[in-house]
Amino acid sequence: MKVTVLRLGHRAGRDPRISTHCGLVVRALGADEIIYTGEKDQGLIDSIEKVRENWGGNFKASYEKSWKTVVKNWKGKIVHLTMYGMPVQDVVKEIPEDEDLLVIVGGEKVPFEVYEKADWNIGVTNQPHSEIAALAVFLDRIFKGKTISKKFPNATKEVVPQKCGKKIIEK
Amino acid sequence: MKVTVLRLGHRAGRDPRISTHCGLVVRALGADEIIYTGEKDQGLIDSIEKVRENWGGNFKASYEKSWKTVVKNWKGKIVHLTMYGMPVQDVVKEIPEDEDLLVIVGGEKVPFEVYEKADWNIGVTNQPHSEIAALAVFLDRIFKGKTISKKFPNATKEVVPQKCGKKIIEK
Repeated sequence: MKVTVLRLGHRAGRDPRISTHCGLVVRALGADEIIYTGEKDQGLIDSIEKVRENWGGNFKASYEKSWKTVVKNWKGKIVHLTMYGMPVQDVVKEIPEDEDLLVIVGGEKVPFEVYEKADWNIGVTNQPHSEIAALAVFLDRIFKGKTISKKFPNATKEVVPQKCGKKIIEK
Repeated sequence: MKVTVLRLGHRAGRDPRISTHCGLVVRALGADEIIYTGEKDQGLIDSIEKVRENWGGNFKASYEKSWKTVVKNWKGKIVHLTMYGMPVQDVVKEIPEDEDLLVIVGGEKVPFEVYEKADWNIGVTNQPHSEIAALAVFLDRIFKGKTISKKFPNATKEVVPQKCGKKIIEK
Protein backbone atom coordinates (compact mmCIF):
# COMPACT_ATOMS: atom_id res chain seq x y z
CA MET A 1 0.00 0.00 0.00
CA LYS A 2 1.41 3.37 -1.07
CA VAL A 3 0.24 6.18 1.20
CA THR A 4 0.09 9.80 0.06
CA VAL A 5 -0.94 12.55 2.46
CA LEU A 6 -2.78 15.62 1.19
CA ARG A 7 -2.48 18.56 3.59
CA LEU A 8 -5.10 21.21 2.81
CA GLY A 9 -4.97 24.96 3.14
CA HIS A 10 -1.40 25.69 4.18
CA ARG A 11 -0.92 29.32 5.20
CA ALA A 12 2.69 30.38 4.70
CA GLY A 13 2.69 33.01 7.45
CA ARG A 14 0.88 31.08 10.14
CA ASP A 15 1.44 27.39 9.56
CA PRO A 16 5.06 26.70 8.61
CA ARG A 17 5.90 24.68 11.72
CA ILE A 18 2.62 22.76 11.86
CA SER A 19 2.87 21.90 8.15
CA THR A 20 6.54 20.92 8.51
CA HIS A 21 5.68 18.63 11.44
CA CYS A 22 2.94 17.03 9.31
CA GLY A 23 5.44 16.28 6.55
CA LEU A 24 8.15 14.96 8.84
CA VAL A 25 5.91 12.71 10.88
CA VAL A 26 4.25 11.05 7.91
CA ARG A 27 7.70 10.41 6.44
CA ALA A 28 8.90 8.94 9.74
CA LEU A 29 5.84 6.70 10.07
CA GLY A 30 5.94 5.24 6.60
CA ALA A 31 3.96 7.39 4.16
CA ASP A 32 5.49 7.83 0.70
CA GLU A 33 4.58 11.39 -0.12
CA ILE A 34 2.97 14.60 1.08
CA ILE A 35 1.21 17.12 -1.15
CA TYR A 36 0.41 20.59 0.20
CA THR A 37 -2.32 22.87 -1.03
CA GLY A 38 -3.05 26.44 0.03
CA GLU A 39 -0.36 29.11 -0.17
CA LYS A 40 2.75 28.07 -2.05
CA ASP A 41 5.73 27.90 0.32
CA GLN A 42 9.00 26.75 -1.19
CA GLY A 43 10.72 26.98 2.20
CA LEU A 44 8.38 24.33 3.55
CA ILE A 45 9.07 21.94 0.65
CA ASP A 46 12.82 22.58 0.92
CA SER A 47 12.90 21.89 4.66
CA ILE A 48 11.34 18.47 4.14
CA GLU A 49 13.57 17.65 1.17
CA LYS A 50 16.55 18.59 3.35
CA VAL A 51 15.50 16.07 5.98
CA ARG A 52 15.26 13.38 3.31
CA GLU A 53 18.74 14.23 2.01
CA ASN A 54 20.21 13.83 5.49
CA TRP A 55 18.09 11.07 6.95
CA GLY A 56 17.41 8.96 3.86
CA GLY A 57 14.50 7.26 2.17
CA ASN A 58 12.45 8.27 -0.85
CA PHE A 59 9.83 10.52 0.69
CA LYS A 60 8.54 13.27 -1.60
CA ALA A 61 7.04 16.65 -0.77
CA SER A 62 5.33 18.83 -3.33
CA TYR A 63 2.81 21.62 -3.81
CA GLU A 64 -0.41 21.46 -5.80
CA LYS A 65 -2.66 24.47 -6.41
CA SER A 66 -5.98 22.67 -6.08
CA TRP A 67 -6.91 19.74 -3.86
CA LYS A 68 -9.59 18.87 -6.41
CA THR A 69 -6.94 18.04 -9.01
CA VAL A 70 -5.23 15.63 -6.61
CA VAL A 71 -8.49 13.93 -5.66
CA LYS A 72 -9.69 13.76 -9.28
CA ASN A 73 -6.50 12.05 -10.45
CA TRP A 74 -6.25 9.71 -7.46
CA LYS A 75 -6.34 5.99 -8.20
CA GLY A 76 -7.11 4.24 -4.95
CA LYS A 77 -9.05 4.83 -1.75
CA ILE A 78 -9.44 8.12 0.11
CA VAL A 79 -9.50 8.76 3.86
CA HIS A 80 -10.30 12.14 5.39
CA LEU A 81 -9.13 12.62 8.97
CA THR A 82 -11.60 14.77 10.92
CA MET A 83 -12.73 14.93 14.55
CA TYR A 84 -16.29 14.49 13.24
CA GLY A 85 -15.59 11.15 11.58
CA MET A 86 -16.05 7.52 12.55
CA PRO A 87 -13.69 6.13 15.23
CA VAL A 88 -10.37 5.01 13.72
CA GLN A 89 -10.31 1.90 15.93
CA ASP A 90 -13.59 0.71 14.37
CA VAL A 91 -12.97 1.68 10.75
CA VAL A 92 -9.30 0.96 10.14
CA LYS A 93 -9.92 -2.71 9.42
CA GLU A 94 -12.21 -1.84 6.49
CA ILE A 95 -9.37 -0.19 4.56
CA PRO A 96 -7.90 -2.59 1.99
CA GLU A 97 -4.16 -3.19 2.19
CA ASP A 98 -3.78 -3.82 -1.53
CA GLU A 99 -4.86 -0.39 -2.76
CA ASP A 100 -3.08 2.95 -2.61
CA LEU A 101 -4.41 5.36 -0.02
CA LEU A 102 -4.81 9.14 -0.06
CA VAL A 103 -5.06 10.57 3.46
CA ILE A 104 -6.52 14.09 3.52
CA VAL A 105 -6.07 16.37 6.51
CA GLY A 106 -7.27 19.99 7.07
CA GLY A 107 -6.81 23.01 7.26
CA GLU A 108 -8.99 25.41 9.22
CA LYS A 109 -12.04 25.11 7.03
CA VAL A 110 -12.44 21.92 5.09
CA PRO A 111 -14.90 22.14 2.16
CA PHE A 112 -17.87 19.79 2.52
CA GLU A 113 -16.93 18.25 -0.82
CA VAL A 114 -13.91 16.67 0.89
CA TYR A 115 -16.22 14.79 3.26
CA GLU A 116 -18.19 13.60 0.23
CA LYS A 117 -15.19 12.52 -1.85
CA ALA A 118 -13.68 10.49 1.00
CA ASP A 119 -14.38 6.76 1.18
CA TRP A 120 -14.01 7.11 4.95
CA ASN A 121 -14.22 10.14 7.23
CA ILE A 122 -12.23 9.04 10.27
CA GLY A 123 -11.77 10.53 13.72
CA VAL A 124 -8.67 9.84 15.79
CA THR A 125 -10.76 10.45 18.89
CA ASN A 126 -13.70 12.83 18.47
CA GLN A 127 -11.95 15.47 20.56
CA PRO A 128 -10.27 18.64 19.31
CA HIS A 129 -6.50 18.18 19.13
CA SER A 130 -3.95 18.17 16.32
CA GLU A 131 -3.72 17.13 12.69
CA ILE A 132 -0.10 16.12 13.36
CA ALA A 133 -1.18 13.70 16.06
CA ALA A 134 -4.10 12.40 14.02
CA LEU A 135 -1.77 11.58 11.12
CA ALA A 136 0.73 9.89 13.44
CA VAL A 137 -1.77 7.65 15.21
CA PHE A 138 -3.63 6.86 11.99
CA LEU A 139 -0.43 5.76 10.22
CA ASP A 140 0.79 3.77 13.22
CA ARG A 141 -2.52 1.92 13.21
CA ILE A 142 -2.99 1.45 9.48
CA PHE A 143 0.51 0.00 9.23
CA LYS A 144 -0.18 -2.14 12.33
CA GLY A 145 2.75 -0.63 14.18
CA LYS A 146 5.30 -1.92 11.68
CA THR A 147 6.56 1.27 10.05
CA ILE A 148 7.68 2.64 13.41
CA SER A 149 10.85 0.59 12.87
CA LYS A 150 11.21 1.48 9.17
CA LYS A 151 14.76 1.81 7.82
CA PHE A 152 15.65 4.70 5.52
CA PRO A 153 18.20 3.84 2.81
CA ASN A 154 20.91 6.27 1.65
CA ALA A 155 20.94 8.31 4.85
CA THR A 156 24.00 10.43 5.61
CA LYS A 157 22.94 10.65 9.25
CA GLU A 158 21.65 7.87 11.44
CA VAL A 159 20.79 7.71 15.13
CA VAL A 160 22.12 4.83 17.16
CA PRO A 161 19.50 4.45 19.91
CA GLN A 162 20.92 5.09 23.39
CA LYS A 163 19.66 4.43 26.89
CA CYS A 164 21.11 7.78 27.95
CA GLY A 165 22.56 10.33 25.55
CA LYS A 166 22.85 11.07 21.86
CA LYS A 167 24.72 9.13 19.21
CA ILE A 168 24.61 9.96 15.52
CA ILE A 169 26.65 8.22 12.82
CA GLU A 170 27.56 10.44 9.88
CA LYS A 171 28.26 8.58 6.65
CA MET B 1 -1.56 4.90 36.03
CA LYS B 2 -1.76 8.68 36.17
CA VAL B 3 0.16 10.32 33.34
CA THR B 4 1.53 13.86 33.57
CA VAL B 5 3.30 15.45 30.60
CA LEU B 6 6.09 17.95 31.15
CA ARG B 7 6.66 20.14 28.10
CA LEU B 8 10.04 21.89 28.32
CA GLY B 9 11.13 25.28 27.07
CA HIS B 10 7.94 26.86 25.71
CA ARG B 11 8.63 30.09 23.82
CA ALA B 12 5.58 32.35 23.90
CA GLY B 13 6.34 34.07 20.60
CA ARG B 14 7.30 31.06 18.54
CA ASP B 15 5.59 28.01 19.99
CA PRO B 16 1.97 28.80 20.91
CA ARG B 17 0.41 26.45 18.37
CA ILE B 18 2.88 23.61 18.84
CA SER B 19 2.51 23.81 22.62
CA THR B 20 -1.28 24.03 22.37
CA HIS B 21 -1.35 20.95 20.14
CA CYS B 22 0.81 19.11 22.71
CA GLY B 23 -1.68 19.93 25.46
CA LEU B 24 -4.76 19.03 23.45
CA VAL B 25 -3.47 15.75 22.13
CA VAL B 26 -2.32 14.44 25.48
CA ARG B 27 -5.73 15.34 26.90
CA ALA B 28 -7.47 13.57 24.03
CA LEU B 29 -5.33 10.45 24.39
CA GLY B 30 -5.76 9.99 28.11
CA ALA B 31 -3.09 11.91 30.02
CA ASP B 32 -4.25 13.66 33.20
CA GLU B 33 -2.19 16.81 33.16
CA ILE B 34 0.35 18.93 31.29
CA ILE B 35 2.90 21.20 32.89
CA TYR B 36 4.73 23.77 30.76
CA THR B 37 8.11 25.28 31.52
CA GLY B 38 9.92 28.03 29.61
CA GLU B 39 8.25 31.38 29.05
CA LYS B 40 5.06 31.92 31.00
CA ASP B 41 2.09 32.14 28.63
CA GLN B 42 -1.32 32.55 30.23
CA GLY B 43 -3.01 32.48 26.81
CA LEU B 44 -1.71 28.97 26.26
CA ILE B 45 -3.03 27.73 29.62
CA ASP B 46 -6.36 29.47 29.05
CA SER B 47 -6.83 27.93 25.60
CA ILE B 48 -6.45 24.43 27.01
CA GLU B 49 -8.70 25.15 29.99
CA LYS B 50 -11.29 26.44 27.54
CA VAL B 51 -11.23 23.15 25.64
CA ARG B 52 -11.77 21.28 28.89
CA GLU B 53 -14.72 23.52 29.80
CA ASN B 54 -16.38 22.78 26.46
CA TRP B 55 -15.35 19.20 25.81
CA GLY B 56 -15.27 17.81 29.35
CA GLY B 57 -13.01 15.72 31.54
CA ASN B 58 -10.61 16.70 34.31
CA PHE B 59 -7.47 17.53 32.37
CA LYS B 60 -5.26 20.18 33.98
CA ALA B 61 -2.78 22.57 32.38
CA SER B 62 -0.33 24.63 34.41
CA TYR B 63 2.98 26.48 34.29
CA GLU B 64 6.05 25.77 36.40
CA LYS B 65 9.16 27.93 36.35
CA SER B 66 11.69 25.11 36.60
CA TRP B 67 11.54 21.60 35.22
CA LYS B 68 13.89 20.58 38.02
CA THR B 69 11.22 21.31 40.62
CA VAL B 70 8.73 19.08 38.82
CA VAL B 71 11.20 16.23 38.46
CA LYS B 72 12.44 16.57 42.05
CA ASN B 73 8.92 16.33 43.47
CA TRP B 74 7.80 13.55 41.14
CA LYS B 75 6.70 10.30 42.77
CA GLY B 76 6.70 7.66 40.07
CA LYS B 77 8.60 6.79 36.93
CA ILE B 78 9.97 9.20 34.33
CA VAL B 79 10.08 8.83 30.54
CA HIS B 80 11.87 11.30 28.27
CA LEU B 81 10.79 11.23 24.63
CA THR B 82 13.74 11.89 22.32
CA MET B 83 14.70 10.79 18.82
CA TYR B 84 17.98 9.55 20.33
CA GLY B 85 16.29 7.13 22.74
CA MET B 86 15.51 3.43 22.70
CA PRO B 87 12.70 2.30 20.36
CA VAL B 88 9.27 2.73 21.95
CA GLN B 89 8.11 -0.64 20.58
CA ASP B 90 10.89 -2.40 22.52
CA VAL B 91 10.76 -0.43 25.75
CA VAL B 92 7.09 0.25 26.37
CA LYS B 93 6.49 -3.13 27.98
CA GLU B 94 9.06 -2.36 30.70
CA ILE B 95 7.01 0.54 32.06
CA PRO B 96 4.95 -0.53 35.07
CA GLU B 97 1.20 0.10 34.88
CA ASP B 98 0.80 0.54 38.61
CA GLU B 99 2.99 3.63 39.01
CA ASP B 100 2.39 7.22 37.95
CA LEU B 101 4.32 8.35 34.92
CA LEU B 102 5.94 11.68 34.05
CA VAL B 103 6.50 12.04 30.30
CA ILE B 104 9.03 14.76 29.44
CA VAL B 105 9.22 16.25 25.96
CA GLY B 106 11.52 19.02 24.56
CA GLY B 107 12.07 21.89 23.63
CA GLU B 108 14.81 22.86 21.25
CA LYS B 109 17.71 22.14 23.56
CA VAL B 110 17.11 19.58 26.24
CA PRO B 111 19.63 19.71 29.13
CA PHE B 112 21.65 16.51 29.49
CA GLU B 113 20.39 16.24 33.06
CA VAL B 114 16.94 15.35 31.65
CA TYR B 115 18.42 12.30 29.93
CA GLU B 116 20.02 11.31 33.23
CA LYS B 117 16.93 11.83 35.38
CA ALA B 118 14.72 9.75 33.06
CA ASP B 119 14.15 6.08 33.84
CA TRP B 120 13.75 5.61 30.08
CA ASN B 121 14.84 7.73 27.14
CA ILE B 122 12.49 6.64 24.38
CA GLY B 123 12.39 7.32 20.65
CA VAL B 124 9.15 7.18 18.68
CA THR B 125 11.19 6.28 15.62
CA ASN B 126 14.77 7.59 15.57
CA GLN B 127 13.89 10.06 12.81
CA PRO B 128 13.39 13.81 13.18
CA HIS B 129 9.69 14.66 13.32
CA SER B 130 7.41 16.19 15.92
CA GLU B 131 7.00 16.20 19.69
CA ILE B 132 3.23 16.30 19.14
CA ALA B 133 3.34 13.06 17.16
CA ALA B 134 5.76 11.43 19.58
CA LEU B 135 3.41 12.16 22.48
CA ALA B 136 0.41 10.86 20.55
CA VAL B 137 1.96 7.56 19.50
CA PHE B 138 3.59 7.03 22.89
CA LEU B 139 0.28 7.50 24.74
CA ASP B 140 -1.64 5.34 22.27
CA ARG B 141 0.88 2.58 22.87
CA ILE B 142 1.32 2.91 26.63
CA PHE B 143 -2.45 2.79 27.07
CA LYS B 144 -2.63 -0.15 24.61
CA GLY B 145 -4.98 1.75 22.33
CA LYS B 146 -7.70 2.00 24.96
CA THR B 147 -7.78 5.73 25.71
CA ILE B 148 -8.55 6.54 22.07
CA SER B 149 -12.18 5.83 22.95
CA LYS B 150 -12.08 7.67 26.31
CA LYS B 151 -15.27 9.45 27.39
CA PHE B 152 -15.07 12.94 28.86
CA PRO B 153 -17.65 13.65 31.59
CA ASN B 154 -19.34 17.04 32.01
CA ALA B 155 -18.87 18.14 28.41
CA THR B 156 -21.08 20.89 27.03
CA LYS B 157 -20.17 19.84 23.48
CA GLU B 158 -19.95 16.35 22.12
CA VAL B 159 -19.33 15.00 18.61
CA VAL B 160 -21.63 12.31 17.29
CA PRO B 161 -19.37 10.44 14.83
CA GLN B 162 -20.66 10.63 11.26
CA LYS B 163 -19.83 8.75 8.08
CA CYS B 164 -20.15 12.03 6.16
CA GLY B 165 -20.58 15.42 7.80
CA LYS B 166 -20.46 17.11 11.18
CA LYS B 167 -22.76 16.60 14.14
CA ILE B 168 -22.23 18.22 17.52
CA ILE B 169 -24.61 17.95 20.47
CA GLU B 170 -24.63 21.00 22.74
CA LYS B 171 -25.78 20.30 26.29
